[in-house]
Amino acid sequence: QSSVTLFGIVDTNVSHVNKANGASDSVTGLGINGNATSRIGFRGVEDLGGGLKAGFWLEAGLNPDAGDGKSGGAAGPGLEFKRRSTISLMGGFGEVRMGRDLAPSYAKVSSYDVFGQVGFGSFQGWKNWVGAGAVTTSDSDGIRQSNMLAYYTPNFGGFTAGLGYGFDEQTTGKNGRYMGGFAAYDNGPLSLTLALDRREVGGGALGGIAFSGNKDSWTIGGSYDLSVVKLNALAQQNRYKADGFDGSAKFNAYALGLTAPIGAGQVRLQYALYDQKAIDAKAHHLALGYVHNLSKRTAVYGTLAHMSNKDLSDLGLGAGGVNNGTPGAGENQSGLSIGIRHSF
Amino acid sequence: QSSVTLFGIVDTNVSHVNKANGASDSVTGLGINGNATSRIGFRGVEDLGGGLKAGFWLEAGLNPDAGDGKSGGAAGPGLEFKRRSTISLMGGFGEVRMGRDLAPSYAKVSSYDVFGQVGFGSFQGWKNWVGAGAVTTSDSDGIRQSNMLAYYTPNFGGFTAGLGYGFDEQTTGKNGRYMGGFAAYDNGPLSLTLALDRREVGGGALGGIAFSGNKDSWTIGGSYDLSVVKLNALAQQNRYKADGFDGSAKFNAYALGLTAPIGAGQVRLQYALYDQKAIDAKAHHLALGYVHNLSKRTAVYGTLAHMSNKDLSDLGLGAGGVNNGTPGAGENQSGLSIGIRHSF
Amino acid sequence: QSSVTLFGIVDTNVSHVNKANGASDSVTGLGINGNATSRIGFRGVEDLGGGLKAGFWLEAGLNPDAGDGKSGGAAGPGLEFKRRSTISLMGGFGEVRMGRDLAPSYAKVSSYDVFGQVGFGSFQGWKNWVGAGAVTTSDSDGIRQSNMLAYYTPNFGGFTAGLGYGFDEQTTGKNGRYMGGFAAYDNGPLSLTLALDRREVGGGALGGIAFSGNKDSWTIGGSYDLSVVKLNALAQQNRYKADGFDGSAKFNAYALGLTAPIGAGQVRLQYALYDQKAIDAKAHHLALGYVHNLSKRTAVYGTLAHMSNKDLSDLGLGAGGVNNGTPGAGENQSGLSIGIRHSF
Repeated sequence: QSSVTLFGIVDTNVSHVNKANGASDSVTGLGINGNATSRIGFRGVEDLGGGLKAGFWLEAGLNPDAGDGKSGGAAGPGLEFKRRSTISLMGGFGEVRMGRDLAPSYAKVSSYDVFGQVGFGSFQGWKNWVGAGAVTTSDSDGIRQSNMLAYYTPNFGGFTAGLGYGFDEQTTGKNGRYMGGFAAYDNGPLSLTLALDRREVGGGALGGIAFSGNKDSWTIGGSYDLSVVKLNALAQQNRYKADGFDGSAKFNAYALGLTAPIGAGQVRLQYALYDQKAIDAKAHHLALGYVHNLSKRTAVYGTLAHMSNKDLSDLGLGAGGVNNGTPGAGENQSGLSIGIRHSF
Repeated sequence: QSSVTLFGIVDTNVSHVNKANGASDSVTGLGINGNATSRIGFRGVEDLGGGLKAGFWLEAGLNPDAGDGKSGGAAGPGLEFKRRSTISLMGGFGEVRMGRDLAPSYAKVSSYDVFGQVGFGSFQGWKNWVGAGAVTTSDSDGIRQSNMLAYYTPNFGGFTAGLGYGFDEQTTGKNGRYMGGFAAYDNGPLSLTLALDRREVGGGALGGIAFSGNKDSWTIGGSYDLSVVKLNALAQQNRYKADGFDGSAKFNAYALGLTAPIGAGQVRLQYALYDQKAIDAKAHHLALGYVHNLSKRTAVYGTLAHMSNKDLSDLGLGAGGVNNGTPGAGENQSGLSIGIRHSF
Repeated sequence: QSSVTLFGIVDTNVSHVNKANGASDSVTGLGINGNATSRIGFRGVEDLGGGLKAGFWLEAGLNPDAGDGKSGGAAGPGLEFKRRSTISLMGGFGEVRMGRDLAPSYAKVSSYDVFGQVGFGSFQGWKNWVGAGAVTTSDSDGIRQSNMLAYYTPNFGGFTAGLGYGFDEQTTGKNGRYMGGFAAYDNGPLSLTLALDRREVGGGALGGIAFSGNKDSWTIGGSYDLSVVKLNALAQQNRYKADGFDGSAKFNAYALGLTAPIGAGQVRLQYALYDQKAIDAKAHHLALGYVHNLSKRTAVYGTLAHMSNKDLSDLGLGAGGVNNGTPGAGENQSGLSIGIRHSF
């Protein structure tokens, strides 16, 4: 019993978005998760002897602006351990992990987003690109996976890798099945990761046609730490292919970012390009952020971002807790959030 | 991590209500929250140095009679931090608090209800007076507010004050917006508080007409401790005004109460008058309670109450966990509950 | 505050079922609760002096394969203390317990199921035998009860007993009411328990006729520990009787099991017969399991089971977390699960 660690994060901010919908209305509100995703969790590790360890990890998202908890793919308002709920066996062989967790093809390579996958500056490559109504298989954004058996290697001189298999649990068909992994190399200032995955999706319609098929993704990321500044880069392709059809719908995404320490703070700058080949449209996403650490556990932050949509592109800044949607095809959206994050 | 406090309350009782519905059926059951609202929470404070502190508070309601958790305005059965989910910065300047919390116009002034806003004796001024179907904006009872930025002053020689602003987060209109505050003076045996708020409400119908407008409330409360007995008083007005209409619907409420320590216990007596001007009807509410402390954390209690409705008034005793409704217009309702409360 | 114990279990496995539906499709997936039901809880005891103690217990089910929490009769996906949410007063007189809990007629006597009421080998006597659509009163499986006042005796030289009364909280009728109890004798290698209960059920239809009536059950269980092997036996009858009709629908169930310690592990073998008198059909259920303890808190396990349905019987192995249904009337189902359980 003494081995349980209770941990969490509460992050709130005041956010303003200028074109929060297709009518160009603006919205201001109490936003959340501008610097880190609010959560509460319980985890622990037990030493079994002989180099073997067992561990558990239960982590739930929560929305401190309204008190409910829908993060991490949760379906309803009540608290759920949807961010992570796993049991692990660890040893010299690495780690075997069972349950719901970040997909191995996301966990490591997403770290090259200098905005940490939250707030107005978050790199938006992991998304259900073909629309909420089109592909209803849960977790089709590629971030998390339920019913997963995963294996993570130990660190071999800087090399690490991870593999995951998510059961579809279907009696017929294979909707929901996931296979993915990554290989990474970390050495001094250099970090490189390649991630690949395939997800069987279905239950929706793409362009009016009932869709069942697969989504194949690859992501390459890297960073180099020059001490005064750290450079980050990401390149990604998501390809949807319907069973029985030739051709595929491609959505490419790229990011270039840098972080620079300034005293107790950190400046963050990132440019992302969302090249939506399937609809022949692009969006440019520029974000500037500053995080000032009041302590190891508490920080204040500000993020300013702009999304410039071209042609049919209709992406919004997608931050949490304020009622902001997308600005309409070809329209732009700007957002500013100033907030505080506390970890416990 | 070591700074997290896990806290909560479990309160259950056996309750009987004589006219639990319009057919004068009675109901007996396992009730909850007769002495304090059942809850579980996590909170902590971090000293940032220089007199500055950061804190978080996550508190969820729960219903120990059935194990679900719907308290504090929760929409579904799952656990939610709907009672309070805030992050604070505190210092010599007072406290800035962000998130969902008790409204500043409720938090302090409601303390003059000698039944602590729970059970058959609870003062019922904070209520959606115009009906559940009429004004659907959440939190229209005036107790809690989501998306709120609040400020609490330090104590200046007995004077304290608090202000809150709840964002509506609407792209058009302002339904859900809250502005409110209080000023209080506490000195020796005397305590006085004035609270004011305005809430923008809408999305329903009042008297068959689509309602969008505001609810303005003021509450004055005070207490004086004569040692052998402590006197309490409350006066409140809730005024609903539809946009574009003259006139308003008023609901006034008053309470006079006393508490008296008897050994390890406390006797409570309160009379409340609900003068529902808008429908020209009154209700008289009389309650007698006794709380016997078995320890600082555990108490047994009993509450006996009677609601006397006149004319169109149809108020019930509204206690938790038993299936009791209202007795019908002009009908009376009596209730008795005997229970136990344990804090941890 | 220091008295709160945080506890829980995470249990996942890889499970395969050969005939998971009426079309004889098989399913393989990440299952849960093969050795123990996954949960998280908070409990504590306070010494009130004079031999009196107060305690609380809040325990929620959770599904680590997907991160949601529906166990213990929970209606939605969010975390709920549906496994147990009670407050107790304990002393020389025994224990008075209020809230939601295991029914006294289930808690003790179910321990003679050598598979601990989980996984493919679980004895299935506690079930809503007349179908999910037929009798919608919650908790009609006889396992748990809300709104319950229960009393447990102290141990009198090996004799113990418990009684529970669950309020229906109905203004008319008595659907949901529970009365039940047990008497047990434990002495050295011998353990014997008799349990009885009556539950008022309604709100559904039995054979196309609106059903309102009662479900009476009795269960006898016993075990004898021969050191090298421990023998277990269970016999049970569930009888549904509709108000205003003669006759009743009977469902009998029997189990014979044994456990044998082997080093750090335990072998389990159980045969159960479900004699569904009401539909004149039988099912035979055979299961073999092995649990290997890696520590007091962590174990790996495997369970192999076969359900042989005769005539109209259509029972499945009913394990958690994989999408397995019933094989169809008169069809058989086999299942294998291999997993890990960690307690904290």
